[in-house]
Amino acid sequence: MSFQSPVSMQDILTAQARIRDFVRHTPLERSIELSRQTSGEVYLKMENLQLTGSFKPRGSFNRLQTLSESERLKGVIAPTAGNHGIGLSYAAAQLNIPSHIFLPENTDPVKIALLKAQGANIQFFETIEDARQAARRVAQEENFTFVSAYNDKAVVAADGTIGLEILSDLPDVEVVVVCVGGGGLASGIGTVMKTVNPKIEVWGVQAANSPTFARWHEAGQTVAVELQPSIAEGLSGYIEPETITFPIFRQVVDRVVTVSEHELVDAMKWMLDHHQHVVEPSGAAAVAALLQNPEQLSGRKIAATITGRNISLSRLMALIG
Amino acid sequence: MSFQSPVSMQDILTAQARIRDFVRHTPLERSIELSRQTSGEVYLKMENLQLTGSFKPRGSFNRLQTLSESERLKGVIAPTAGNHGIGLSYAAAQLNIPSHIFLPENTDPVKIALLKAQGANIQFFETIEDARQAARRVAQEENFTFVSAYNDKAVVAADGTIGLEILSDLPDVEVVVVCVGGGGLASGIGTVMKTVNPKIEVWGVQAANSPTFARWHEAGQTVAVELQPSIAEGLSGYIEPETITFPIFRQVVDRVVTVSEHELVDAMKWMLDHHQHVVEPSGAAAVAALLQNPEQLSGRKIAATITGRNISLSRLMALIG
Repeated sequence: MSFQSPVSMQDILTAQARIRDFVRHTPLERSIELSRQTSGEVYLKMENLQLTGSFKPRGSFNRLQTLSESERLKGVIAPTAGNHGIGLSYAAAQLNIPSHIFLPENTDPVKIALLKAQGANIQFFETIEDARQAARRVAQEENFTFVSAYNDKAVVAADGTIGLEILSDLPDVEVVVVCVGGGGLASGIGTVMKTVNPKIEVWGVQAANSPTFARWHEAGQTVAVELQPSIAEGLSGYIEPETITFPIFRQVVDRVVTVSEHELVDAMKWMLDHHQHVVEPSGAAAVAALLQNPEQLSGRKIAATITGRNISLSRLMALIG
Repeated sequence: MSFQSPVSMQDILTAQARIRDFVRHTPLERSIELSRQTSGEVYLKMENLQLTGSFKPRGSFNRLQTLSESERLKGVIAPTAGNHGIGLSYAAAQLNIPSHIFLPENTDPVKIALLKAQGANIQFFETIEDARQAARRVAQEENFTFVSAYNDKAVVAADGTIGLEILSDLPDVEVVVVCVGGGGLASGIGTVMKTVNPKIEVWGVQAANSPTFARWHEAGQTVAVELQPSIAEGLSGYIEPETITFPIFRQVVDRVVTVSEHELVDAMKWMLDHHQHVVEPSGAAAVAALLQNPEQLSGRKIAATITGRNISLSRLMALIG
């Protein structure tokens, strides 16, 4: 291994053993049409078919199993745009741990319904930033464990298990394309790929409207980044410069691609039309990146992550209709 | 076992062993919202997530493995509204057997694209009935093996493996709700349920526009049935009275429910809105039946089959838009 990381391959294997009985090994589905369009061999890692409709419960199950007995009794708290909270409250319910989820008022109704169904204690705030500040404060006041969606070694390690599954199904993968919000998924999967074979190329994909990691990667350091709202709520919003994910990300991700709002919508439509799968905007980012860069994928064996499907029918219709 | 069937539990277990390495054990997904609406505990058997997008390859892989060496060399032929042909040509390609698929001109473009991608030899006809007659004739002329989508012991036995999977994931299931076209799926799953526990109730669901098995079941014998077109192409069309499925069906299916075209569309919307899954009209029939009969499911543990997702985006939008 030619890089230094706070999350090792052993952490990732440990996470795999811990979460194996709680989550699905999702299918790696060959995309006939993306293979044709890129002249490559493209496979999609279908984490939209994961329990709770996104990859998030992997990190939650791993993190919750690192809690002490007294921490388990007190419970956990997280601010979230949706999927992290759903994964966390689902895992917490399975493990009999109380969960408190703080989220913005404009959260997709499907995500709110899933949270409620899992018995999470939920509270609404005007923005995700307000929710984050309140969650930090309440965590201190009430002695709840604050669980970040990405700035947490146990979460990054669990995200890496997706990389292990990709390699077990496609050992000779050459390019892995991963969407990037807080960088947990790309750091975890990238660590696996670069440990196993440094020649495997790792692409990160960001929403052009929220290009934090794209700018940091370009600059080689954290810099101030101007953010605009994005339909990809899972890939947008403020990322703290001290996140553990950036030092990993900058070593294991070879290039960062940004995709426009329009390209995200096109990728959602594309997934419906060619795979008959509902994918939420964040979840379609890797497909958008492939569609944007077909010539660079010609002749190569590619795996791309599809990360979630939690979008209400009304929002889906408004976006693609 | 208190009934006589040309397809035994042993045939079904044999099928399971034969096809295990070729198809997915699909998830049995708890439906929070259907459980709430029925006051029961409802699980969906997600064969829409099966390889090729429907349950059909199970039957194909089993049937193809019963061919003699000379039959394998000659190849197979089938008339189909889509999914049977996709499953058959997929399985045939995996096993290096030539396949010839005859289908109506109005077949969904997604289904045609899947067939072409699998290298099937395809030929179009004005109606499914024309395709069926031509396939029978060409099978004789060319010595191809004609593979029915339901009137075949090996296909019915393989359809029964879905019942084995339901029982392995939900051993105390009380009601199983299965959609019915040619009756293969209901006969196979029903045989498993009634063999294991005759108290398990088996419901068949038909399109009201094409109620062959509903009328036969009611009459206790095959009778002439008036057919109208249905958006559920997998559940509609002429069924030959000599099919092996009816003698099984009448013994293992407790009641037949019919659902209207409108109810099928509502069930498709319902699956998109509450599960974020694309389901084709035929595939949504069991959900339509549950939504139609909530009061009869109260307090019970129910499994319902979701059988396929192969519908083009343009047709989906036209139906639900």
